[in-house]
Amino acid sequence: MSLIVQKFGGSSVSDAEGVKRVARRIVETKARGNDVVVVVSAMGDTTDDLLDLAHEVSSDRGSSRELDMLLTAGERISMAVLAMAVHELGAPAQSFTGSQAGMITDGIHGAARLVEVQPHRIRESLAAGNIAIVAGFQGMNRQTRDITTMGRGGSDTTAVAMAAALNADYCEIYSDVDGVFTADPRIVSSAHKLNEVSSEEMLEMAANGAKILHLRCVEYARRFNLKLHVRSSFSDLEGTWVIPSATDADSAELMKEIPLEQPLISGVAHDRSQAKITVVGVPDVPGYAAKIFGSLNDAHVNLDMIVQNVSTKSAERTHISFTLPQDQGGTALAVLRRVQQEIGFEDIEYDDSIGKLSLVGAGMKSNPGVSFQFFEALSEAGVNIDMISTSEIRISVVTRADLLDAAVRAVHTAFGLDSDDEATVYGGTGR
Amino acid sequence: MSLIVQKFGGSSVSDAEGVKRVARRIVETKARGNDVVVVVSAMGDTTDDLLDLAHEVSSDRGSSRELDMLLTAGERISMAVLAMAVHELGAPAQSFTGSQAGMITDGIHGAARLVEVQPHRIRESLAAGNIAIVAGFQGMNRQTRDITTMGRGGSDTTAVAMAAALNADYCEIYSDVDGVFTADPRIVSSAHKLNEVSSEEMLEMAANGAKILHLRCVEYARRFNLKLHVRSSFSDLEGTWVIPSATDADSAELMKEIPLEQPLISGVAHDRSQAKITVVGVPDVPGYAAKIFGSLNDAHVNLDMIVQNVSTKSAERTHISFTLPQDQGGTALAVLRRVQQEIGFEDIEYDDSIGKLSLVGAGMKSNPGVSFQFFEALSEAGVNIDMISTSEIRISVVTRADLLDAAVRAVHTAFGLDSDDEATVYGGTGR
Repeated sequence: MSLIVQKFGGSSVSDAEGVKRVARRIVETKARGNDVVVVVSAMGDTTDDLLDLAHEVSSDRGSSRELDMLLTAGERISMAVLAMAVHELGAPAQSFTGSQAGMITDGIHGAARLVEVQPHRIRESLAAGNIAIVAGFQGMNRQTRDITTMGRGGSDTTAVAMAAALNADYCEIYSDVDGVFTADPRIVSSAHKLNEVSSEEMLEMAANGAKILHLRCVEYARRFNLKLHVRSSFSDLEGTWVIPSATDADSAELMKEIPLEQPLISGVAHDRSQAKITVVGVPDVPGYAAKIFGSLNDAHVNLDMIVQNVSTKSAERTHISFTLPQDQGGTALAVLRRVQQEIGFEDIEYDDSIGKLSLVGAGMKSNPGVSFQFFEALSEAGVNIDMISTSEIRISVVTRADLLDAAVRAVHTAFGLDSDDEATVYGGTGR
Repeated sequence: MSLIVQKFGGSSVSDAEGVKRVARRIVETKARGNDVVVVVSAMGDTTDDLLDLAHEVSSDRGSSRELDMLLTAGERISMAVLAMAVHELGAPAQSFTGSQAGMITDGIHGAARLVEVQPHRIRESLAAGNIAIVAGFQGMNRQTRDITTMGRGGSDTTAVAMAAALNADYCEIYSDVDGVFTADPRIVSSAHKLNEVSSEEMLEMAANGAKILHLRCVEYARRFNLKLHVRSSFSDLEGTWVIPSATDADSAELMKEIPLEQPLISGVAHDRSQAKITVVGVPDVPGYAAKIFGSLNDAHVNLDMIVQNVSTKSAERTHISFTLPQDQGGTALAVLRRVQQEIGFEDIEYDDSIGKLSLVGAGMKSNPGVSFQFFEALSEAGVNIDMISTSEIRISVVTRADLLDAAVRAVHTAFGLDSDDEATVYGGTGR
């Protein structure tokens, strides 16, 4: 008997039919003799509807405690309805809020981090023979006893954290996509599903725009040595296994089932959600860059790629470019304008029509042919490169947004990732 | 400075505009120097929508724990949105679930009774200068730590219980009606609002079909000697004060403001939600009635009026008629069929096309002219009377359902309750 944690996103439970379909899957898993813990997101557009309601009464961004109280109603609805649908199939189930399930967080409303997982009630419920259904995305601040939410992707994190705390055999992340693909099937129709990917590669893909798994959930799974199975709730196909470490015994066993000729390249990730800021005419003396990045850090702006180019106009001044999430653009510009006089740079340029493309694969650095092939493919596709960054297992470039799709297709083909079958795409991906 | 508890029903917060209107009223009350605790129901049709969703996935009536979990999402939404709307007006507010507000109940899901109210967090929130907003209708079973709901009318009970526990000066119950009327203004357009009514009269009216206040809430207020102010959230008019006892000092002071010539008759209540069951041909020997009522009691059927008529066909057998809520009709019939053979009665008749009319007023029994006038009015209106029951301050009759409106109007007129002004009716009344 295994203990399995199954997480279902909002797209899997978008309506009553979806809830029933998920209930059947859960009950089948239980009927095969497994203990089952389910983590569920809010149904379909519930979260967006609740946000709309909040904006109708309030322009205030400071009501974060109340916004969390509001949004957590979404999972409360989905988990209770799912428990009822499971009862309808004759199986016992109990639903639990984040607080009841022991998801203890810090007090940062809207972006709370897990402090501790205390799943006493989940263990009791499983021991009593129940399927335990847990609200994703939410927790409780122990100090104030206030309800918190963990931000987008929080439900994946709930599932992985619950699986780790319960020492589950593995954690299944269900969405409307069959697994992890070599590229986004919406852009590259010949993209193919990976049977297995390492946690490290998945980390790079998630960090660089692959939306199927959130970075935080992959980090968590890797830290706790937890296997993830990323699959679709709309089909019975095997999905993609995300394996934390090849040295782990269980994992080694699973590796046996995977073809030996594992491709060097895992896939092509892309990201349209970034913007680029260029700080023009920075005095080229030590300490100025630190001041710029220090002030951005104080404002919690997440920088990604950073490039410093020596100015051709004047040897005394340089430009610094960096990328950041578009939704932090306003904050970053405000911070920079505030410190402009003090630091003495000349101007700020902002561009949110950029795209980022990343090629991810194990052993990339040790194979110098990869980067040559990569840049050649982009060049042949007529894609200009604006910024470059690399890691052990990744090369990323920034291009013009309107060239991103062509760039993704070109690189996907160049590395022989195209498959003969068309990928199945079911719809939008939930939280 | 007073401490005031204000309760707003679903019709007062049916949409964002309603929420904003309620927020303005709350903030005004606070600005007048009062401490304010708000109890709020789910917005508009939310509860019914959630029930519909439950029925889409489940025919099971046994998921009562999960149904409570589901329904409590309704107040979670309204209270959080209301807190945001209050923030938007620049006033501090915090929302609290029933569990957070210390509403401790027993474990009867869907119809939980309050065991204890422990409003520590509400007191702390008030002391910190906040408006405290509490979810109506919901509580927590301390033994299992499961969420419970208190059934329809539960939000009124939450408000009154919270007011009693905090020793509030009074409790305002807001709905879409201006107060307690001498009859339902939807039926009797000349009905007029009462400025004051005693708890005892209000109890009789609530028990006999007046929907403006739930019996349970009136009982609770009376027990804790709490003044209620029943009024509309759509106007600034004074509503109806429900005064627990004339001997109370505060209340005596308030009585001074009320005209001395208080009418003998408070009003006419009516109820369409009852059904009548007649058990035909019961052996007329001691103990048989007890067996019938005992078995109905075991099945938690609430009987109201009971009449035993001697059968004309046979001196050895009698008929027993009683009224009960229509939604318990099926249960009662099943119970009776089960015991029919054992008790040996001949048949069961069921009639849900009945209406009940009650005339309520202080000192009714001591004024024999009242019942004469009452029956004369019904007779002149051509209304046949099926059953009669009386108390110190009430006469009730059962009539055919299609004659009920005419009967209510006739009695209202006969007792001089008609006013010259048309009553204002805003819409349906929320939970």
